[in-house]
Amino acid sequence: MAMTGVLRPGHMQIKVIDLDESIEFYSNVLGLVQTGRDANRAYFKGWDERDHNSLILRDAGEAGMDFFGFKVSSDAYLNQLEADLKNYGVTTERIPAGELLETGDRVRFEIASGHQIELYSQKKDVGNGSGYFNPPPWNSASEVGIAPIRMDHALIYGPDIEKVQALFCDVLGFYLVEHILLEDGQTDLAIWLSCSTKAHDIALVRNEEPGKLHHTAFLLESWEKVLRAADIMSMNKVPIDMGPTRHGVTRGTTIYAFDPSGNRFETFCGGYQSYPDWEPITWTWDEVGPAVFYHDRQLNPAFLSVYT
Amino acid sequence: MAMTGVLRPGHMQIKVIDLDESIEFYSNVLGLVQTGRDANRAYFKGWDERDHNSLILRDAGEAGMDFFGFKVSSDAYLNQLEADLKNYGVTTERIPAGELLETGDRVRFEIASGHQIELYSQKKDVGNGSGYFNPPPWNSASEVGIAPIRMDHALIYGPDIEKVQALFCDVLGFYLVEHILLEDGQTDLAIWLSCSTKAHDIALVRNEEPGKLHHTAFLLESWEKVLRAADIMSMNKVPIDMGPTRHGVTRGTTIYAFDPSGNRFETFCGGYQSYPDWEPITWTWDEVGPAVFYHDRQLNPAFLSVYT
Amino acid sequence: MAMTGVLRPGHMQIKVIDLDESIEFYSNVLGLVQTGRDANRAYFKGWDERDHNSLILRDAGEAGMDFFGFKVSSDAYLNQLEADLKNYGVTTERIPAGELLETGDRVRFEIASGHQIELYSQKKDVGNGSGYFNPPPWNSASEVGIAPIRMDHALIYGPDIEKVQALFCDVLGFYLVEHILLEDGQTDLAIWLSCSTKAHDIALVRNEEPGKLHHTAFLLESWEKVLRAADIMSMNKVPIDMGPTRHGVTRGTTIYAFDPSGNRFETFCGGYQSYPDWEPITWTWDEVGPAVFYHDRQLNPAFLSVYT
Amino acid sequence: MAMTGVLRPGHMQIKVIDLDESIEFYSNVLGLVQTGRDANRAYFKGWDERDHNSLILRDAGEAGMDFFGFKVSSDAYLNQLEADLKNYGVTTERIPAGELLETGDRVRFEIASGHQIELYSQKKDVGNGSGYFNPPPWNSASEVGIAPIRMDHALIYGPDIEKVQALFCDVLGFYLVEHILLEDGQTDLAIWLSCSTKAHDIALVRNEEPGKLHHTAFLLESWEKVLRAADIMSMNKVPIDMGPTRHGVTRGTTIYAFDPSGNRFETFCGGYQSYPDWEPITWTWDEVGPAVFYHDRQLNPAFLSVYT
Repeated sequence: MAMTGVLRPGHMQIKVIDLDESIEFYSNVLGLVQTGRDANRAYFKGWDERDHNSLILRDAGEAGMDFFGFKVSSDAYLNQLEADLKNYGVTTERIPAGELLETGDRVRFEIASGHQIELYSQKKDVGNGSGYFNPPPWNSASEVGIAPIRMDHALIYGPDIEKVQALFCDVLGFYLVEHILLEDGQTDLAIWLSCSTKAHDIALVRNEEPGKLHHTAFLLESWEKVLRAADIMSMNKVPIDMGPTRHGVTRGTTIYAFDPSGNRFETFCGGYQSYPDWEPITWTWDEVGPAVFYHDRQLNPAFLSVYT
Repeated sequence: MAMTGVLRPGHMQIKVIDLDESIEFYSNVLGLVQTGRDANRAYFKGWDERDHNSLILRDAGEAGMDFFGFKVSSDAYLNQLEADLKNYGVTTERIPAGELLETGDRVRFEIASGHQIELYSQKKDVGNGSGYFNPPPWNSASEVGIAPIRMDHALIYGPDIEKVQALFCDVLGFYLVEHILLEDGQTDLAIWLSCSTKAHDIALVRNEEPGKLHHTAFLLESWEKVLRAADIMSMNKVPIDMGPTRHGVTRGTTIYAFDPSGNRFETFCGGYQSYPDWEPITWTWDEVGPAVFYHDRQLNPAFLSVYT
Repeated sequence: MAMTGVLRPGHMQIKVIDLDESIEFYSNVLGLVQTGRDANRAYFKGWDERDHNSLILRDAGEAGMDFFGFKVSSDAYLNQLEADLKNYGVTTERIPAGELLETGDRVRFEIASGHQIELYSQKKDVGNGSGYFNPPPWNSASEVGIAPIRMDHALIYGPDIEKVQALFCDVLGFYLVEHILLEDGQTDLAIWLSCSTKAHDIALVRNEEPGKLHHTAFLLESWEKVLRAADIMSMNKVPIDMGPTRHGVTRGTTIYAFDPSGNRFETFCGGYQSYPDWEPITWTWDEVGPAVFYHDRQLNPAFLSVYT
Repeated sequence: MAMTGVLRPGHMQIKVIDLDESIEFYSNVLGLVQTGRDANRAYFKGWDERDHNSLILRDAGEAGMDFFGFKVSSDAYLNQLEADLKNYGVTTERIPAGELLETGDRVRFEIASGHQIELYSQKKDVGNGSGYFNPPPWNSASEVGIAPIRMDHALIYGPDIEKVQALFCDVLGFYLVEHILLEDGQTDLAIWLSCSTKAHDIALVRNEEPGKLHHTAFLLESWEKVLRAADIMSMNKVPIDMGPTRHGVTRGTTIYAFDPSGNRFETFCGGYQSYPDWEPITWTWDEVGPAVFYHDRQLNPAFLSVYT
């Protein structure tokens, strides 16, 4: 009890156009720590993540997301959730340990929005570089590039988001934190779901085209680090989509920008702590602007139209 | 699954020497929101807490803690945990709904360190003043006094903390996040336990005298708010025990100070996110100074000797 | 020596369309302190300014700037600068003490860009509310609305800015801090001038139409206060033109927004300290975007076209 | 006019016990940029200072200050101030250009407190590493060690501080910003003097022993950088004397710590902008605690007794 089952977003594999250029970008500009390579993939983690990898880049000649994986608290829970998914009518696939470096068996399934989601319970603890005895609060890795703490969440685009919400809440133990209504006042444009006390572990926007990635989010420590991130983006001519600013939803501070392949990423800070006994927050269509970008109070043209 | 059972520290009842003076202090200096009164008690919450109360002051002519309560995710879980506690050999008591304002049944039990702990599943949602439709990120209540977001955790002093750890981990689903070893390199001086992704929901320091309170902690949003808190303390001649500084344990930034009755409280910010799959961090006795106060690198005399 | 003669931007009188609405805005949203009223004007100061007024609103049925005044270190310097201006060929006018509340004689003159500039040496010290004995670092006035510390500088639009630069540098003791070149690589689009260690006390952009105001800037203490300002703007539906972001020029962080009359104002923080022995920084035309908005790296359409 | 004559504290030469150890400390822990070496001295500057050096370490086998120098706006002003000093009865000495690397003629004199003060007008501009065309707001040098922006001011200890105040104000153009009174309510314990809009360019504490250094202060950009500085100090076992905290005087945030020779230094941020038309702030003896350390509200034992 307390925290069991699905713990957190643990890894995402994205497609990139030029792997070498992307490795350079993710290492030195975003400032993730490279932890591995295999045939066509490079493995990264945020400096303060302990598990071996959280972002995997695949050399694919195009942008987009391959899959998004959640870490589960134990092998037993992995087996149980696999059974629960099957009982719910979901087709699952076991991907054997080792297919991803330092990662155990993964249970993969497709959700109604057209995305590949995974659960897994094992990933090698490689530490954050400070060790587990008398560690300093941070180390030199925390100042290489933007240097996010961790991969935090993702926003994905696709149809049938209510079916995804039902699956995540009924089977995987997530709860609805916030949602934005469409003009009809009933249908959701977007939903934010949490499996923890984070304001979101995954979010979805309704979209005709299935299986799309809006952004992968990386966590920063403070609004001042958000400014530093924006500065580093400009110093490196990274295309900034929006920000620094605040979201109405989650209250988090944010910058959206694009990696060299055109995959959007977010450097995110803050947001409140939410709990499963939480009454969800509702944003109405007339306030969709401040819901997404609290200061501009309107969506920028790219928000709904640009994804990978 | 995900987050179930024990969710968070939900309420603490402390004893105060002069209730009127304490109401003034907690309302206008610490900046909690008063939500109720009964015969000899005043009820408060942090501005961003939704539940009716999190800190209850009891007019007692002395300082100290009456009980510390954790909110549980449902009535069913409350019943199950009550049964689990009994099976574990713990004597529990049901305190009927309404004994605390706007709060449901509480299951109370004493732990080996001599403290009264409670579980409950119902407390009235009174909101944070911004409503659940299109809310602003903060409101005027967030700038009255120090204005913490929420009651965050407590550090309590007593004997047999390994028994408390066993109970909290084996029955209530907590996990060990950090601990400080005594000179023998084996026995814990102090333990930090979490039931969430917070770096601590409760902490204990080994102490001969049972049932003592070291501090109740209130959450702030940023290091700049910690500075503002210290300024407000000095403007109001609140005795500051230590800070602003950083803890080695949890990495959080902090000020310790005393309420008018001599109860220590903490205004706390930050700390990492931890998870139950976490390898605990160990501090050795020779580093107890930086473990507690990272900058001074030594305990202040009051840390181990002053509690209520 | 050291600091003598022209000390700082001391007051600006702007035109507003509806005085009552403007008083409400400047008092409660921007959070200036109202210090006076006369027939058709309202007087304000930033909470930490000691002089009686720094922003005067004139009920004019339209937007724009009436005049921008600089405080001079003594009556003797005022007389000397008046003589210096005349020797330089500038026509000056004495406006007698009292025409502006609590303000001494003003020496007014028009500069080549078509703006009315004033010098004065006397304005009543009304303090910041904390007194001059054992003052706290801030007081409640510093949290009413956006609550800038002071009126900091202005950016004005007009022709012949090189003539203005010559006058300010040769007669008034300013120095050039930064400038942006037009496409020809020789002519300045914009200049930033300082009479102190501030990165700018006045700035000018070349513009055919004379006598125009781009923005009046108000100083904030930190990037976190800039975020708070943006939040308050959105809570009050203040139209934000740009930001929060950083300027390339001065490195300051910033938000541009509009008052109810359409006068642009800036909430500004930071910027380096410059000195008269400073080699000016030059921005070339191809980098005009990051010069102005360092993160977006392009001018927004309003920057060059909207002024009052 | 405006800013002429004495501009700013420009260089300080201090004595160190072990030059190699000190170079290591000032380069990698405090994070100054080394710009030169001569027989027994090493030269440093803050990353954002443009002049060749601001801190010179002399291999002396002991701690302390050799001299503190102020940059003057021109050779003409240097000559004039030299004459003014002589007229005031001060014995001056010309130290020829080149005795300090990349530095012009220096006019040296002893003040009543027993310190060697210098004026000079020439020091080579070596830039901050970003150049004077389209510079980024910061560069990699700003994150090496604590990385202060600049040497900011010094607090020196000695007798006859009223004579020093008279000399600095009457001859050099400084003004009194704040002062702390002794128990008699008349005599100053300490004075803060400015030649700019900085809250202090030099400060003095009355002390029987002449010619002593309390601390040299280095400027940081934000309270968050102060926290980072404290962390770096602890990571490197630098003895922290006090902080992070706030001063009542100047409102600045601060840490006091000691270099390997025992010279105290300060990492300082903030403080208000003051001007020569400023009514000085007075602290009375009963409030000397908050005047110096606003949060602790008492002097630490070292403040008055430890200097070099």
